[in-house]
Amino acid sequence: MPLPTDPLRLGANYVPSSGWFYSWLDPDLDANRRDFADLAGIGLDHVRVFPIWPWIQPNRTLVRQRGIDDLLDLIDVAAEFGLSVSVDLLQGHLSSFDFLPSWVLTWHRASVFTDPAVREGLAVYVDRVTRAVASRPNVFAVTLGNEVNNLYPANPTTPAASSAWAAELLGVVREAAPGLLALHSLYDATWYDPDHPFHPADNVDLGDLTTVHSWVFNGVSALDGPLGPATVSHADYLVELAASTSLDPSRPVWLQEVGAPRPDVPEQDAARFVRALLDHVTPNPALWGVTWWCSHDLDRSLADFPEREYDLGLFTVDHRPKPAAKELAALAGQARRPAAERRPALVCEVDLRAEPGRRAEVAPGSAFHAEWVRLRRSGPVAIVTRAGAADPGHLAARGIDTVLTQA
Amino acid sequence: MPLPTDPLRLGANYVPSSGWFYSWLDPDLDANRRDFADLAGIGLDHVRVFPIWPWIQPNRTLVRQRGIDDLLDLIDVAAEFGLSVSVDLLQGHLSSFDFLPSWVLTWHRASVFTDPAVREGLAVYVDRVTRAVASRPNVFAVTLGNEVNNLYPANPTTPAASSAWAAELLGVVREAAPGLLALHSLYDATWYDPDHPFHPADNVDLGDLTTVHSWVFNGVSALDGPLGPATVSHADYLVELAASTSLDPSRPVWLQEVGAPRPDVPEQDAARFVRALLDHVTPNPALWGVTWWCSHDLDRSLADFPEREYDLGLFTVDHRPKPAAKELAALAGQARRPAAERRPALVCEVDLRAEPGRRAEVAPGSAFHAEWVRLRRSGPVAIVTRAGAADPGHLAARGIDTVLTQA
Repeated sequence: MPLPTDPLRLGANYVPSSGWFYSWLDPDLDANRRDFADLAGIGLDHVRVFPIWPWIQPNRTLVRQRGIDDLLDLIDVAAEFGLSVSVDLLQGHLSSFDFLPSWVLTWHRASVFTDPAVREGLAVYVDRVTRAVASRPNVFAVTLGNEVNNLYPANPTTPAASSAWAAELLGVVREAAPGLLALHSLYDATWYDPDHPFHPADNVDLGDLTTVHSWVFNGVSALDGPLGPATVSHADYLVELAASTSLDPSRPVWLQEVGAPRPDVPEQDAARFVRALLDHVTPNPALWGVTWWCSHDLDRSLADFPEREYDLGLFTVDHRPKPAAKELAALAGQARRPAAERRPALVCEVDLRAEPGRRAEVAPGSAFHAEWVRLRRSGPVAIVTRAGAADPGHLAARGIDTVLTQA
Repeated sequence: MPLPTDPLRLGANYVPSSGWFYSWLDPDLDANRRDFADLAGIGLDHVRVFPIWPWIQPNRTLVRQRGIDDLLDLIDVAAEFGLSVSVDLLQGHLSSFDFLPSWVLTWHRASVFTDPAVREGLAVYVDRVTRAVASRPNVFAVTLGNEVNNLYPANPTTPAASSAWAAELLGVVREAAPGLLALHSLYDATWYDPDHPFHPADNVDLGDLTTVHSWVFNGVSALDGPLGPATVSHADYLVELAASTSLDPSRPVWLQEVGAPRPDVPEQDAARFVRALLDHVTPNPALWGVTWWCSHDLDRSLADFPEREYDLGLFTVDHRPKPAAKELAALAGQARRPAAERRPALVCEVDLRAEPGRRAEVAPGSAFHAEWVRLRRSGPVAIVTRAGAADPGHLAARGIDTVLTQA
């Protein structure tokens, strides 16, 4: 398990520059090499990669070895560039598109979260792919899937079913690959939407570390614009919410996705936005690493993506670096930024583990969020639960020297 | 356009013996060769083939050339065995599974029948694939897709929308390949279900000939068992319903799918069932050809298919011929069976073109169906509309010498 004192990990979510994830249907390792050269060239140390589930498992009992081999080939190409790899299994959801096999759709309609036969099929897929990728020394983590909570509401679930689903599949990952980080990944409705059937406890209890995905189009950029304090501190805020919610004060938090989406962040503000968000989040003692979304822009010949998805790359489709690439390259050249030795913490009166129905009280624009943003303007500010604030061991472990309560 | 006096066409719906249609993801032309050798070996002259739409068009604006090339390779392999080929485009639906691309699902949910952008995408796909397959001399027909009405109700539609959709795409096929038969394909709810939003008129007005799919599990086998008169005459009944509904008395009808499904037709009755159904339907003067569903059994290692789908092949997965193969081989050795020179016709008081809401009155088990089956026991019996019965030209064109009315 990496410790917070390890060097900060810096990487990219790998979106192929040619053919997006459709390129799995037409593998081209030289195209992958060209992309990975871009990423290694700015000093990144890892990529997160996304096979397409229904193309590897088109029938519940058919896991295509060639589909797995294509994934292994990509991992090996990453190794050529010194990149380590985190593999997400169940895509599932990518950039607004859900890839679902025919055996869970229409005449075979079944929820991937609750149907027993489907879950059995998922377990086979997770086991097969995890065992295969664990054979590669540059693979360090397996995530169940990218933001699997986007598969809801198309796939009905309940909070209990969502937790059991992830716990079961994480068990399969651990059994298949004891040496890898086994991880869960959820978009931020888990933190902010009171009715969302995936709970904050899932983020911090399940998997070997917590992952968070920070997207400023979720509401914060509407508060104060591309360079406003709420916007540039949002990644740090999510890392703090996660750190405070965990029962383990030393559990790391991986900022597994963060990006500079237009129009929330206009092109002319991108460099300053990226620098500010990195300045805010990288000193956070809980932070394990930052993985940018995404490596490469999306070819505009591909249709129907939300407008913002086309321009999220560190590089253009013709391999020119964009402002975020330059900011990440600058960060990659440094040692880990010193974490604040001592910092204050704001008490969060909502117990997110026990009271998910109160999630709106910590969402962007809430009084709690506004107060944290106000305090954060003067320097690092932790978040701590009422229980954590009463626990000297917890406070010490997280470097908290002062406990503040909301006015 | 083939005329009814041409030799009867005999073929098979091609289901690959290894990997079902999932084998498109792992093309193996030698495996296809082995399968086609089976079919050519019993004297069949054609195959109907089924590419998987979302694997060729994973994005609305991305039609994968390699996916098309895989299809062309299969067509060329069929030519090696003297087999001509009919291509179905939009699968879409196969053996209970719907293959739908992410760009019409969940967050991009849109009806393939009514959404303007989706229809635009379909037109591009239909055009590209049709132009490509038309380059091969052994291709004779393009069907829009296999039983596209199975994509409803998952994709909402109305009768008017369904008709316009098919007419539009058939126009694209004709423009792309003027020399090929352009065809529509629907399962028999169009004939029997009063509320079904695909009408009998679509079967007989759209496309260059009428296709029918005869499956005895639709109700007829429940009437009188595997060898009963309603069951063995059902294919002939559908051909007659189609011939009578067409405004063109010489329009051919292709029995594009027919099979011997268990448990409706137990193994020990299969040979007699097949012989009886062929004896009933092949003298029909409207019949263009018979295409068996299907070429090969389904490997039982593949999950979630309806039980009957596993055993529908003319051959087992290890290439042993089954009873239906022997019966088709016997038929293939003959010239076209002589059509009845003259035959009586039973008047159908339901005008299926104008009164689709009365379709239940011709469905299996209806009084009309029962009376036709009773008469059919004594020899060929046509079906004629009230208007057709009053038209001497229509009667002469169809070889009808006596008009009978229901008691």
